[in-house]
Amino acid sequence: MNLGIVGCTGAVGLEILKLIEKRQVKYNSLRLFASKKSLGRKFMMNGNEHEVEELKSDVFKNLDCAIFSVNSTLSKKYSVIAINNKCTVIDNSSAFRMDPQIPLVIPEINIDEINRTKSQIIANPNCSTIILNMVIGPINNINPIEKIIISTYQAASGAGLKAMIELKSQAKSFCQDEKYDTRIFGRQFLWNAFSHDSKIMSNWYNEEEMKMVNETRKILKNPNLKISATCVRIPVLRAHCESVSLTLQNKININEIYKILEKSHGVKILDDRQMGQFPEPIIVSKKNDVFVGRIRKSLIDDYTVELFIVGDQLLKGAALNAIQIYEIISKNNSLMTK
Amino acid sequence: MNLGIVGCTGAVGLEILKLIEKRQVKYNSLRLFASKKSLGRKFMMNGNEHEVEELKSDVFKNLDCAIFSVNSTLSKKYSVIAINNKCTVIDNSSAFRMDPQIPLVIPEINIDEINRTKSQIIANPNCSTIILNMVIGPINNINPIEKIIISTYQAASGAGLKAMIELKSQAKSFCQDEKYDTRIFGRQFLWNAFSHDSKIMSNWYNEEEMKMVNETRKILKNPNLKISATCVRIPVLRAHCESVSLTLQNKININEIYKILEKSHGVKILDDRQMGQFPEPIIVSKKNDVFVGRIRKSLIDDYTVELFIVGDQLLKGAALNAIQIYEIISKNNSLMTK
Repeated sequence: MNLGIVGCTGAVGLEILKLIEKRQVKYNSLRLFASKKSLGRKFMMNGNEHEVEELKSDVFKNLDCAIFSVNSTLSKKYSVIAINNKCTVIDNSSAFRMDPQIPLVIPEINIDEINRTKSQIIANPNCSTIILNMVIGPINNINPIEKIIISTYQAASGAGLKAMIELKSQAKSFCQDEKYDTRIFGRQFLWNAFSHDSKIMSNWYNEEEMKMVNETRKILKNPNLKISATCVRIPVLRAHCESVSLTLQNKININEIYKILEKSHGVKILDDRQMGQFPEPIIVSKKNDVFVGRIRKSLIDDYTVELFIVGDQLLKGAALNAIQIYEIISKNNSLMTK
Repeated sequence: MNLGIVGCTGAVGLEILKLIEKRQVKYNSLRLFASKKSLGRKFMMNGNEHEVEELKSDVFKNLDCAIFSVNSTLSKKYSVIAINNKCTVIDNSSAFRMDPQIPLVIPEINIDEINRTKSQIIANPNCSTIILNMVIGPINNINPIEKIIISTYQAASGAGLKAMIELKSQAKSFCQDEKYDTRIFGRQFLWNAFSHDSKIMSNWYNEEEMKMVNETRKILKNPNLKISATCVRIPVLRAHCESVSLTLQNKININEIYKILEKSHGVKILDDRQMGQFPEPIIVSKKNDVFVGRIRKSLIDDYTVELFIVGDQLLKGAALNAIQIYEIISKNNSLMTK
């Protein structure tokens, strides 16, 4: 398998490189691509030096699979070229997620979509969507979901490496009583929280909220699912939290919810009511699992369970999910047509 | 009116002193009380020096009104002594809030409760409860509330001055690559978020969540109101945010919601969808008004409106609400029985 990593110097790209080494991901050859300004950067991986190449149209003819972590515009342009060269694409952008021909995949939840669609492009869902669905997907299989109300607490990493650097720089400015650098978010982020800075749509939800809504409907195969999200950024570096009120079709049984989540791959329950220990970004950062706690029967009615979910935005929210997809399709030769 | 401020050196007490000067609050005499370790501290107010006295049982015989910002145990002990000495008490603790004989007052929402009950103790609601009810109270008067689902984003100030200092000290430790001081919260708070550290109750909600639930039911005079809260602390200094999904009994009309909130005293709408400017802790800190934005018809159904509410926890969430109550009762001699 000749593997290419497109956008290897961004926050997600760098995590992909770390995971390839850490998980001993198999490949014949590995090539790294980025924009011109990263040309010549070198990465040592498994004892071999890899030099960053410029992303160009002709690179795909020698690749079997490429993992893209670039913006939607670049993804759209180069994915078409890649698949015309019979190179399978795993795409982290939002470019193809809502295309009905293209599977939107969380391996633990709906890996079958890859074989069903036989698509050469596989879309990685939005980070908040993955973290949510890792927990609600298994519950939905046993007791179908009627309604979901979500409030997010999203980390800087969702806006990339520069956003993480800006947030940390604001802590330094605070200590030195200097003016804050606010180039990325246009506002003080330290000691602040703000509505997700994506575009407001015609229904007054923002783009991030509508990604959660539409992608969850697609993943759960329930186009009429009642779901609302409020997406908020908080000054945390790399793990997203989600407070979720989940109404099911049948009366909830909290023991059953626990049993479902205990058996779910990639999910870890942290719900220590005696010690007051529940999922937190500091605990979950750099962990592969999505953590869930504060699991309780809602005061609202007998059909609703309240949950607090935390996942590393860069790992399961992006890089890890993409690598898992690569690991699965690289065993499944039917997709690799060269 | 001989006024006493009990607990004048805490985060809320200090704000009360600032408000007394800023709002030119009227009094005959003003005395400041705190625990032994603050004895001798002096505050200049309106050109006069006030020295902190020790809180003792005999101080109330010369006071007409005392504003308490101390813990529940101290409030319970000294409030009884105060009213036995015909000194009206405005209490910021949770000691009396759920007592059916005692009014739980937000002046803009239910000031009538003071005259109705003729109670000599008046309870100030929990900070998150005040901020929530400032916005939902006026809506409830026009279109009664059926159900409320809240997720909070709570600032350090809710845990007092030492918590604010600890959070700021962690930014300094981050910059100097030193170990974090975690005495107050027992965990890293910088770059983190965690479930509110109050006790978990038998229904697995925490104490802060149940304060919001029970106090809101009392304020809205709706003991069976369907309401659920998830309370979370985030690394912000002094303003609380609340993401609220509010289901009403009649179909919502967004223009009507706007009109209700525009007319509500102490509420400010900040909902600029073009500029992407909504309420944020940094904007709302040190402001008297409770801010609301992201006002939108929910995707869930035609009866639900989604809101993002932010209020200064120390001002309208505590000190300002108490001072407003004092201003009202000091004009209303019927309560002042000396």
